[in-house]
Amino acid sequence: VSLRGIHHVGVAVADLDEAIATYERLFGATVEHRGPIEGQGVEAAYLRIGVDRVELLAATGEDTPVGRFLAKRGPGMHHVAFEADDVQTELGAFAAAGAQLIDHVPRPGLDGLETAFVHPDALHGVLTEVVSGG
Amino acid sequence: VSLRGIHHVGVAVADLDEAIATYERLFGATVEHRGPIEGQGVEAAYLRIGVDRVELLAATGEDTPVGRFLAKRGPGMHHVAFEADDVQTELGAFAAAGAQLIDHVPRPGLDGLETAFVHPDALHGVLTEVVSGG
Repeated sequence: VSLRGIHHVGVAVADLDEAIATYERLFGATVEHRGPIEGQGVEAAYLRIGVDRVELLAATGEDTPVGRFLAKRGPGMHHVAFEADDVQTELGAFAAAGAQLIDHVPRPGLDGLETAFVHPDALHGVLTEVVSGG
Repeated sequence: VSLRGIHHVGVAVADLDEAIATYERLFGATVEHRGPIEGQGVEAAYLRIGVDRVELLAATGEDTPVGRFLAKRGPGMHHVAFEADDVQTELGAFAAAGAQLIDHVPRPGLDGLETAFVHPDALHGVLTEVVSGG
């Protein structure tokens, strides 16, 4: 397993426009990319803050993963994403180490990324994403 | 406000040794620093993962901020820390922008850092730390 570092922190928000405005105002953040994530029921925005990124996630409906997260826990940190050279290779390494995966094959993310999620039970309650490309 | 990027992600854990072992095994993480954080009721470990860090936080007792967090929400993401040139300058900028602060002056963090927390209400539920130095 060789991860390059943190790619972004994912944050679930109730109102995407409002949250973007807050990060622009307080952090000098700039919107790098914004759009729906296919099949996830999410409208997302990548914000650039210095050399790193925060991904804001708004649900397109209540019966979506982020919609259920918001109903249960309220707005806040949703996941941490680490950058890898190759997502499939990392997934294989995680599986070999006995980690419970959510995605067994990479799927397309925002802005041309390949992405996969590892189950929070594998990492002491932290929903963890592995991304590459983009 | 000029933030350099994400300094670390803080994660509340029930058992520090066990969590360190998981991150070493699954992520190839290495322990950069470990020790108590004065006055916070926390035993913390900075793990290096690629170019970035995860800070694992274990409570030294139930009646501590992290102890109460664990009782209420269970283990998981606790805060996001951004790196700044100067913490006091950032705090002034946040306050001027109307953001609710937890710390109005920086305090000492792990490993010689200066650190201050911004209230999660200012950032859509995300407890946010600003750090410099170290």
